[in-house]
Amino acid sequence: MRALLTVSYDGTDYCGWQRQDGQITVQQTIEEALERLYGQKVAILGASRTDSGVHALGQRATFTPPHPGIPVKNLHFAINTHLPNNIRILRAEAKPDTFHVISDAKGKTYAYKIQNGTVYDPVLFRYTHFVPEKLDLDSIHEAANHFIGEHDFKAFCAVHGSATTSMRTIYSLDISKENDVITYEICGNGFLYNMVRIIAGTLAEVGMGKREPSEIPAIIESRSRNNAGITLPSKGLTLINIEY
Amino acid sequence: MRALLTVSYDGTDYCGWQRQDGQITVQQTIEEALERLYGQKVAILGASRTDSGVHALGQRATFTPPHPGIPVKNLHFAINTHLPNNIRILRAEAKPDTFHVISDAKGKTYAYKIQNGTVYDPVLFRYTHFVPEKLDLDSIHEAANHFIGEHDFKAFCAVHGSATTSMRTIYSLDISKENDVITYEICGNGFLYNMVRIIAGTLAEVGMGKREPSEIPAIIESRSRNNAGITLPSKGLTLINIEY
Repeated sequence: MRALLTVSYDGTDYCGWQRQDGQITVQQTIEEALERLYGQKVAILGASRTDSGVHALGQRATFTPPHPGIPVKNLHFAINTHLPNNIRILRAEAKPDTFHVISDAKGKTYAYKIQNGTVYDPVLFRYTHFVPEKLDLDSIHEAANHFIGEHDFKAFCAVHGSATTSMRTIYSLDISKENDVITYEICGNGFLYNMVRIIAGTLAEVGMGKREPSEIPAIIESRSRNNAGITLPSKGLTLINIEY
Repeated sequence: MRALLTVSYDGTDYCGWQRQDGQITVQQTIEEALERLYGQKVAILGASRTDSGVHALGQRATFTPPHPGIPVKNLHFAINTHLPNNIRILRAEAKPDTFHVISDAKGKTYAYKIQNGTVYDPVLFRYTHFVPEKLDLDSIHEAANHFIGEHDFKAFCAVHGSATTSMRTIYSLDISKENDVITYEICGNGFLYNMVRIIAGTLAEVGMGKREPSEIPAIIESRSRNNAGITLPSKGLTLINIEY
């Protein structure tokens, strides 16, 4: 039996998800909690290697419980007692041993949040990127539609990305605004390294009038990172959900 | 001429508003920013002495600019360049010397936020109080109505409060819920020490079924702190606005 955890975290104080020597990461923090809970080392596998500073509402991770002492349906409460406040296991489910948290994922949803006003709200500082220039939502909307569908997104991948193929399908890219906060919610079958943050940066440049919405197809076709916009900071990015 | 500042802050890392020896406070941090800006010491007066950990969206503070070099309408941008990320001056206005930021206040609005679910969301941890027991909104609503109006709120004042009178008028106390977050928004002509947090705690106990809504008038009349509910933690409290 595998236990599937749904994990939420404030990524501000972590060097991302993935365990790394000499850095405090979310994976390592959860593995240490499991070690205190079970009295032995337990390795977990996360669905998505979120970067340093990226937040999560619905990250997923699996592990094999070393003994069946704690019923799976109560596992999240037990693990949470050993975790710091900025990480919470929202729920735990039992899955067969054939379940694979990475390769069984059908889609991922991320949100990128931009605070767009004259002065930013400090309460939103940790979870949004601040842009003081007024962004035009209509042109952002028009540009966003060009990303939908299956494309080679090499132009929207950090140069040191290591994926074997840069073909990805974006199912939806919704733009909404509430008070001063613009949210891009993007759902796809997978994302290249920094892809959401580069798309967010390109859309912001469209919103500032630095680029036209009609330029997007040519940028995608160029397959050159130099033609896309800047990479926005990680703190505006939240992993919303992994779909299975 | 006085400059009136509207101030927003994430209070998590501050020992409240008021300057205190050996502690980092919001007032002191803004006064240090003004000293760097003007090259001389500048004292500010805040409208409300928010406690350690309390946040603000619309705190107000005044000071007399030592020289007229910076136009008041741009003052917030100039001060913000000297402030840490968790404090922002939202705007600055010119007021006559007769304006008094404390005694001219006609009302204050605070919000208290409770996260009410099985597991709390870490992204809301800094700004909400978590209550895992399901709270009944109907009875909280019924209880809230008993607070409206002019009353002697001595039962809802921390025992070491020092106000000369405990008569206060509550203009409105609105309860709303969005996803798992319950917000009490309370507006009154002034509040005693810890009054909002004790009202919030009493309402939470009503929501848990530990008290009946009909008990509120007798608790108010008793004028005894022992009869009211617990004081909820400061991190759920935000000073929304000061009305002039």
